[in-house]
Amino acid sequence: MKLPKVVEDLTNSFEKLPGIGRRSAQRLAFYLLRVPQKDLDSFAHSLTNLKKLTKICTICHNLTDQEQCAICSDPSRDGSQVCVVESFQDVLAIEKSGSYHGVYHVLHGSISPLNNIGPDELYIDTLILRTKKLTVKEVILATNTSLEGEATALYIQQALNDIKVKISRIGRGLPTGVEIEYADDQTLVHAFGTRKIL
Amino acid sequence: MKLPKVVEDLTNSFEKLPGIGRRSAQRLAFYLLRVPQKDLDSFAHSLTNLKKLTKICTICHNLTDQEQCAICSDPSRDGSQVCVVESFQDVLAIEKSGSYHGVYHVLHGSISPLNNIGPDELYIDTLILRTKKLTVKEVILATNTSLEGEATALYIQQALNDIKVKISRIGRGLPTGVEIEYADDQTLVHAFGTRKIL
Repeated sequence: MKLPKVVEDLTNSFEKLPGIGRRSAQRLAFYLLRVPQKDLDSFAHSLTNLKKLTKICTICHNLTDQEQCAICSDPSRDGSQVCVVESFQDVLAIEKSGSYHGVYHVLHGSISPLNNIGPDELYIDTLILRTKKLTVKEVILATNTSLEGEATALYIQQALNDIKVKISRIGRGLPTGVEIEYADDQTLVHAFGTRKIL
Repeated sequence: MKLPKVVEDLTNSFEKLPGIGRRSAQRLAFYLLRVPQKDLDSFAHSLTNLKKLTKICTICHNLTDQEQCAICSDPSRDGSQVCVVESFQDVLAIEKSGSYHGVYHVLHGSISPLNNIGPDELYIDTLILRTKKLTVKEVILATNTSLEGEATALYIQQALNDIKVKISRIGRGLPTGVEIEYADDQTLVHAFGTRKIL
């Protein structure tokens, strides 16, 4: 049976999203047939305006709807500490933990030769410029602990080598709630290396 | 950190969909920030027009963009057999199997007192009217084998009782690829009842 074109189009749009297969996409399209028009309109409005109503902070490249993001323009944040992360989501996760009171620098990705992403595709140049300012005392590298994240951290460490600034890498070890039996080798190697005398 | 309102709105819209939690919803909104505006516009267009560009077939209540659905208006389909299903998706599944060449009747749900859905909320009255026509020779009840689906099938069977028409219920037994060890009691009871002499 051929579905009406609009249902087919909507299914295709859903199917392009990460983690949504053909069947789920169709299920979502059918579900929306029973939703009030008002909800469909507001969903559509958010989609059309998503990129028009958002900006990238001119200082840290975080997501914002102003020139500068809420964190950069907050005078209570410690501007001497810059935490370097790969994505907006990383900022959200760290903010949620409440463990950090400095500012951020969002790279928008990590160095990944396989995907043709080199240092020039990331916001590394602006990080170097920021770090050269006397106010920055510490750069905390909080890129992922994946191969790409580690490579990016290493690259930035070398790029900042001749600037007089403290550079640190986010702490490694066992995450909370994990059973040692199931921890991977690399994590255990780090956990022993970073053990604390009690 | 407060997210821009449009990102928050889009996250909320995604979160209302079945099977999508807060975290996935946010992930989808962030993902869409990197999608071309053209794709966002076409996604939004399908959403706004989803209900405007679709109709319910005046004969069988299947989904269509015409007055009558592709199946009802296909002269090669056998109009003497009417297969009664709960939803559009059921029609799709049966059509995909290629096992049926008659027409359909979509009830738009099943009788469910817990959810305040009685026979009057479903397209049962139009089914009775259709069945009274001399062209219909068999009504195949293909509602789900859930409690609600069974109750609906029973109700329809009784409602059609004084019309001279063959009424059948879709066959029961073990589905394909299943291990008997894990089949439930009810399925096994049916499988023994419908066993075939070889």
